[in-house]
Amino acid sequence: MSRRNGEPKYIMLINEVRAWITSEKLRPGQQLPTENDIASQFGISRQTVRQGINELVHEGILYRIQGKGTFVQSTSRERTPATNVIAVVTTYISDYIFPSIIRGIESVLSPNGYSILLLSTHNDFNEERRDLMTVMEKQVDGLIIEPTRSAIPNPNLAHYFTLIDRNIPIVMLHTTYPQLPIRCLRMNDVESSKLVTQHLVDNGHVRIGGIFKNDDRQGVFRLKGFVETLMNHRLQIEPTFIHVYKTEEKSSVAHQYFNKFKSSSPDARPTAIVCYNDEIASELVHLFQTNGILVPDSVSVVGFDNMQPFTRQINNKGWITTIEHPKFEMGTKAAELLLEAIQESRKGASGRYGEDFVFPSILVPGSSTDSIRESGSTSHKDSSSQPVTAVETP
Amino acid sequence: MSRRNGEPKYIMLINEVRAWITSEKLRPGQQLPTENDIASQFGISRQTVRQGINELVHEGILYRIQGKGTFVQSTSRERTPATNVIAVVTTYISDYIFPSIIRGIESVLSPNGYSILLLSTHNDFNEERRDLMTVMEKQVDGLIIEPTRSAIPNPNLAHYFTLIDRNIPIVMLHTTYPQLPIRCLRMNDVESSKLVTQHLVDNGHVRIGGIFKNDDRQGVFRLKGFVETLMNHRLQIEPTFIHVYKTEEKSSVAHQYFNKFKSSSPDARPTAIVCYNDEIASELVHLFQTNGILVPDSVSVVGFDNMQPFTRQINNKGWITTIEHPKFEMGTKAAELLLEAIQESRKGASGRYGEDFVFPSILVPGSSTDSIRESGSTSHKDSSSQPVTAVETP
Repeated sequence: MSRRNGEPKYIMLINEVRAWITSEKLRPGQQLPTENDIASQFGISRQTVRQGINELVHEGILYRIQGKGTFVQSTSRERTPATNVIAVVTTYISDYIFPSIIRGIESVLSPNGYSILLLSTHNDFNEERRDLMTVMEKQVDGLIIEPTRSAIPNPNLAHYFTLIDRNIPIVMLHTTYPQLPIRCLRMNDVESSKLVTQHLVDNGHVRIGGIFKNDDRQGVFRLKGFVETLMNHRLQIEPTFIHVYKTEEKSSVAHQYFNKFKSSSPDARPTAIVCYNDEIASELVHLFQTNGILVPDSVSVVGFDNMQPFTRQINNKGWITTIEHPKFEMGTKAAELLLEAIQESRKGASGRYGEDFVFPSILVPGSSTDSIRESGSTSHKDSSSQPVTAVETP
Repeated sequence: MSRRNGEPKYIMLINEVRAWITSEKLRPGQQLPTENDIASQFGISRQTVRQGINELVHEGILYRIQGKGTFVQSTSRERTPATNVIAVVTTYISDYIFPSIIRGIESVLSPNGYSILLLSTHNDFNEERRDLMTVMEKQVDGLIIEPTRSAIPNPNLAHYFTLIDRNIPIVMLHTTYPQLPIRCLRMNDVESSKLVTQHLVDNGHVRIGGIFKNDDRQGVFRLKGFVETLMNHRLQIEPTFIHVYKTEEKSSVAHQYFNKFKSSSPDARPTAIVCYNDEIASELVHLFQTNGILVPDSVSVVGFDNMQPFTRQINNKGWITTIEHPKFEMGTKAAELLLEAIQESRKGASGRYGEDFVFPSILVPGSSTDSIRESGSTSHKDSSSQPVTAVETP
């Protein structure tokens, strides 16, 4: 073994093993001598041998088989044959932002020769488990999945461990399970929520309420950004103005919130409300409008996800003030990152996962917000109420 | 209003208001003119007036009273008189790391004239709620609190909102609720777990298992660091080797894990196990030893929190390999940060909260780990098995 001055011994070993492989003294699939044999052959410690071998395993040049030993990786590691099927598992399929996301995924995967196995969880752990079992059965080449109730402990972790162990590339949408080192494409929910709450503060609102989902991490982080903005401006943080809900309450939460305040005097209710998403915001606007509380004149309402034109129009002239969601672009980007991960995995690259891909937070001002009058109700909108950070959608 | 060239109008307004206060034209507690009056007086838009006032509120120079208007802050904002009582709420009081943490807190607060109201939650939401109500009743000057089951949605958020709204300084121990912008003092649990798992990999282990708590964020992040390390080294991630548990299972989890493997052949069980903490690790070592499975000869075990000498000795000669926990120092630092926050709050500073205070991750090698023999069992310890990143405790 040739040793350059000052070079650590394990680096020399690495170079030696590389030379064996280049010279085909060791061919793909062949077993390395034992650590003890290598150690005594080169007069180095077993610890040093292990350090060198770990590094080469890490680089994907060698691999270990439990109880057998260490082997030379083939250029494309032997694996189950490609099925050209990618599983896409979202909470919902045909509603809200999901058709656009799925179209985005499809627009990249189809031209690359993949078909899509489309599954949904309805944000339910049992359905997620069933979906994960289907994914394993079908031996898909990769998985794009949106976590289910990411803010509570997941009972299906063992299935994810199996997928990771089988080296099936995974990317996640909107958030990740905090236990799992899996790459995700997401919004910055804290920043988005600060942006939309700041918009209300800039419009003079001081009694600001909110409705947040509490069983997924998006809702948890949106609540944090909301509270942080109120704290920064030393505005009132009134517990009765802040309502958290879980998935099961989704269809009733806007009613619950409205009922709390429908008989209150204008002074005793919030003048502006941050809603978990445009779906909830749209329902709440409808309830206010049909009960004689005018939006944005008496109350401003904001949401997330920019669902115009599918949400209700405000006074037949505009949409809900909201935060942009990349939808189709999130789909295309997710598919691209998954295809990259599949390529990497075929090349036998290490199991390291990439950084989260975070989309920018962009405020989309609409007709559901207005600046407040001194009296506590809101004045007519004037163009100067739009902060410079806001970007109009084209 | 004097305007320097190019200076934004709201900055000029800010300087003008500062001048009013310095010249005592406006005294502490006095009300500002309405936004409309200021706008017409200076010929600027109400939006600009609001921007300037927001900034001064943010700086703690002005404050708003809902429905009344904007006022000049007194140098020390009027607040409930100091009680010189600090509440300290931990999950446990007399066990494990908690006596040391509480001694650390006491060592700083006592000399500063504070007495301590000591409460515990036993990681139970009902007890946490009762404690928070006591904290509000006693009108404490500040709160040091360890979150309860931080990995599941907290039902007591409204009480935290009330405390934040009352401007009661809070610092958290070990982790924070992800919904709440509250400063915390913590370990880097992902990094610590990577360090302790890497120690096992460096010792040649390839079949590594783990026991992790799933209802607090420390356990969630330790699981993540563990899985990430196995992925990086392309080691087996065997679902049956990884066990998650919740608080109620605390006293039985080591037994459960041991029972899974007590009848397995050595080839079918992990050769090393990462435990959520030294308490679990100590129990597991005891179960192995008393059933003829030698630690570290047949199985290596690691923990977190460095509870020597309170955990079981290994073969009467050393302790469990673990990650350092600052204990007393965490207590003193928490008390210092809280006292700073109380000072800031008395000066009427803004509600911004500081960055998390993160203690360094330090591996403490012990006698419960050893490097593995080719056969799959472990060899006798040799000093070269200690990685350079490890730091011996004094």
